Amino acid sequence: MERIIIDMDEVMADTMGAMMDWYREHYGNDVDYSKMTGSWMLGIPEQHKETVRSRLYSKGFFRHLPVMEDCVDVMNELNKKYEVFIVSAATEFPNSLKDKLEWLEEHFPFLTWRQLVLCGDKRMISGDYMIDDHTRNLVHFNGKPYLYSTIMNAHEKGYERVENWKQIAGIFL
Amino acid sequence: MERIIIDMDEVMADTMGAMMDWYREHYGNDVDYSKMTGSWMLGIPEQHKETVRSRLYSKGFFRHLPVMEDCVDVMNELNKKYEVFIVSAATEFPNSLKDKLEWLEEHFPFLTWRQLVLCGDKRMISGDYMIDDHTRNLVHFNGKPYLYSTIMNAHEKGYERVENWKQIAGIFL
Repeated sequence: MERIIIDMDEVMADTMGAMMDWYREHYGNDVDYSKMTGSWMLGIPEQHKETVRSRLYSKGFFRHLPVMEDCVDVMNELNKKYEVFIVSAATEFPNSLKDKLEWLEEHFPFLTWRQLVLCGDKRMISGDYMIDDHTRNLVHFNGKPYLYSTIMNAHEKGYERVENWKQIAGIFL
Repeated sequence: MERIIIDMDEVMADTMGAMMDWYREHYGNDVDYSKMTGSWMLGIPEQHKETVRSRLYSKGFFRHLPVMEDCVDVMNELNKKYEVFIVSAATEFPNSLKDKLEWLEEHFPFLTWRQLVLCGDKRMISGDYMIDDHTRNLVHFNGKPYLYSTIMNAHEKGYERVENWKQIAGIFL
């Protein structure tokens, strides 16, 4: 069975979307999406960066993220045909660890704790395919990499891209 | 730089020792070490298994484990010469995740969150060397495996063994 390594934030979970919604509600003004090349944090006004960043460290933020459209159904099918591992860079945020496990168990009950990997760096992860929104994770990968498109990686070149979960289904199912 | 994958429980942390100490204090009688082939849980009397097992799920158990003798000093030297990743099967126990990160940061301040991997299964982990007390983790490994000896794996054959951290220093430093 071939192994697929799948990223969580910005691929399965709409982490940036949740943060931007909170920002708009909290501050009443919008962020600058045109400045988000490389990181969504760059679109946050300087005086609000610390508050926004502190939310990443708070308990609960990663527990209540929206799931990307079609992700649950496509993942359910992938899980029947492939050895699926969800690999999330999470150890930078101690309070995200249990939140991410519980989020996965809530929305993807067909996956188990055996399929979740919470790490800092992904260079020691091996598999046949990796779907990730960061080229820094894909660059070390020994299998075939797919860059999941976000506004932050729009400038990156040299990777085959997937735009959404329907397209992932088209490639893998 | 060569990569070493190092297990946490029973290799860096004396998890079984902590549990057995607690057991003796709590119940006043000793466990049966002769029955622990495969798992230390087998040495716990049937009527106490559920209570003992529930401690693995409790917040704090993995936060206060003793560090194996010589582990800190040897790890500090390994970390200068190798790319070190600490890979722990932890996602079965949701409350262990943050505890394990904090335990590592307390006792091994020269390691960073980038070097910790909390997972369920280790088959997707690649590297040059792996030190682990479970053959189920070593069997899939693409590099050279070392079985860290414990009372639970004394019956296992076919693996090069390390008995303690002084011996690890002798091999790698």
